[in-house]
Amino acid sequence: MSWLEDLVARIGPLDERAMAEARARQDSLTKPPGSLGRLEALAVQLAGISRRPRPRLAHKLIVTAAGDHGVVAEGVSAYPQSVTAQMVGNFLRGGAAINVLARQAGARIVVVDVGVAAELPPAPGLVARKVRFGTANLARGPAMTPDEALAAMQVGVEVFEAELDRGCDVVALGEMGIGNTTSAAAIAAVLTGRDPGELIGRGAGLDPAGLVRKETAVRRALELHRLDAARPLEVLAKVGGLELAALAGATLAAAAHRRPVIVDGYPATAAAMIAISLAPAARDYLTAAHRSQEAGHAIMLDWLGLEPLLDLGLRLGEGTGAALALHLVEAACRTLDEMATFAEAGVSSREDA
Amino acid sequence: MSWLEDLVARIGPLDERAMAEARARQDSLTKPPGSLGRLEALAVQLAGISRRPRPRLAHKLIVTAAGDHGVVAEGVSAYPQSVTAQMVGNFLRGGAAINVLARQAGARIVVVDVGVAAELPPAPGLVARKVRFGTANLARGPAMTPDEALAAMQVGVEVFEAELDRGCDVVALGEMGIGNTTSAAAIAAVLTGRDPGELIGRGAGLDPAGLVRKETAVRRALELHRLDAARPLEVLAKVGGLELAALAGATLAAAAHRRPVIVDGYPATAAAMIAISLAPAARDYLTAAHRSQEAGHAIMLDWLGLEPLLDLGLRLGEGTGAALALHLVEAACRTLDEMATFAEAGVSSREDA
Repeated sequence: MSWLEDLVARIGPLDERAMAEARARQDSLTKPPGSLGRLEALAVQLAGISRRPRPRLAHKLIVTAAGDHGVVAEGVSAYPQSVTAQMVGNFLRGGAAINVLARQAGARIVVVDVGVAAELPPAPGLVARKVRFGTANLARGPAMTPDEALAAMQVGVEVFEAELDRGCDVVALGEMGIGNTTSAAAIAAVLTGRDPGELIGRGAGLDPAGLVRKETAVRRALELHRLDAARPLEVLAKVGGLELAALAGATLAAAAHRRPVIVDGYPATAAAMIAISLAPAARDYLTAAHRSQEAGHAIMLDWLGLEPLLDLGLRLGEGTGAALALHLVEAACRTLDEMATFAEAGVSSREDA
Repeated sequence: MSWLEDLVARIGPLDERAMAEARARQDSLTKPPGSLGRLEALAVQLAGISRRPRPRLAHKLIVTAAGDHGVVAEGVSAYPQSVTAQMVGNFLRGGAAINVLARQAGARIVVVDVGVAAELPPAPGLVARKVRFGTANLARGPAMTPDEALAAMQVGVEVFEAELDRGCDVVALGEMGIGNTTSAAAIAAVLTGRDPGELIGRGAGLDPAGLVRKETAVRRALELHRLDAARPLEVLAKVGGLELAALAGATLAAAAHRRPVIVDGYPATAAAMIAISLAPAARDYLTAAHRSQEAGHAIMLDWLGLEPLLDLGLRLGEGTGAALALHLVEAACRTLDEMATFAEAGVSSREDA
């Protein structure tokens, strides 16, 4: 895993000079200072990430990683496991919400099979990098071996780096995996130290009995594995998911290559938490897209120190919240880049009043 | 003003049948029911407005109305009055925030001079419909005569109807007018019955002394005019603004023609309150774009019964919040229209689990 140490070591701080230049330009634009609110801070963050005082988003990438979860055997999902593979098919045919929202945002999607529990026929747009056919049941044993977790992370790194060559100014990370909110809740419980009861929600639409089964599965996993927040790779292997590992890897790769990462919903946020546990410096590269309707997501965002851009009651995953947030990220960059200054426009600034 | 009564009478209820069809389609799409959160309700609302079960936004319109305010003589703004005309020039040259955000959203902007206190040279994109050179000082007398207020409303109606012929599936309403948050606060105080102290904020960037002058001006206006919430046209004339009157007119016209209206920030929300006081049925045609950083905006949105889509600390006006919200409105329509159904995609629904 020296590749992982190398990757983490490459994640540097934001560029203060580019940020200062962006702030100075921001205050010269034809608007009251600060009046674009969070868009201004976002543009400055992107300047610091990209080292460009006027960052542009020519190439927008969405990576949606898919994997299955053995814990579905505990009755923790409202949908059968087969839906993961079926939804991957739907992504490849362009019929899912993430396809619609990616088209609208002018973003390209890469769908990665890192662990779907079915043979998927080759298809344009599918990156076939299956590490195994779904995880084992985390409530009864380790979800993966440490090697499998690392291999899945490496898939995320390699997929991101391949896409980088095709152009990528921002990456939105999404997931598909029936049962993965259970895995995400277990990760969040270990890393935040909070009680699973605070972190668990209805996922894609669990009934009350299912919710009890889900909480029981997470509690059982925590008792079984006795995990330590200081050992995030072990957390990932024992209670994580293949697609979550890939997203954690993609997050680190994006930060190492100075690209902003838009974090989607509940499972993707758990993946970001693994990444940040491994590389705290990567945190400054993250923007939280939205606050999920899933209970506990707010706790996870607080732990990451992120304030989401949107709060629309979404609970779909796939990268849908992140795709919506791309419009706001683009607005932040475009206002900074394209607006006229007071001097250019011949508009009196406050100082002239 | 029989034209106004006729206009109000044409505003009908939302189409229940189109809404029911939209809801049924929503629940057949490849996502857990309700998982797109507020986007689902928004798409259903737009179906009810447009009478189309799958509403589409081919033509997006932003109307930015500009007018000046005599109350600036009270020292209520951080910027000189001349900035209104200068910013209109900036809009026409494409250098303002609203231009950038309109380009990004694929919306066309119409800039209406309904009361700028300066001669504006003719320019492409400027609709010259000046009713008077700014309002009088509302703290010392009526801002306008009743006839002027009605004439300014009619400008809004006529501008909207002219644009309708060019295609309009949604309209975002914005404003430019130095001093207009003072007028908006006075309107809001009368219509909500709340104390001006709760409604007043820093506008474009007032210092504490300016804030005291602003509150004093509003209190003086309320004492002087003794307004009644049941007489919204009188409220508009005595303490309103020409651009706010135009936006109120455009709101009513849009509702009468069954087009959704995206309400922008603090002054535009005051205009919407006037419109809804005149025609309560128009409320169902409104969507609030964002919660302004301006104190009191939340009170106004509550009075309207609207929950804003965004909360980004914006306080710029021009229609900028509404332009950002257009992406979400479009996402709501496109997901409803373009996503595959469970049957089309061969995905198992929850019932198959």
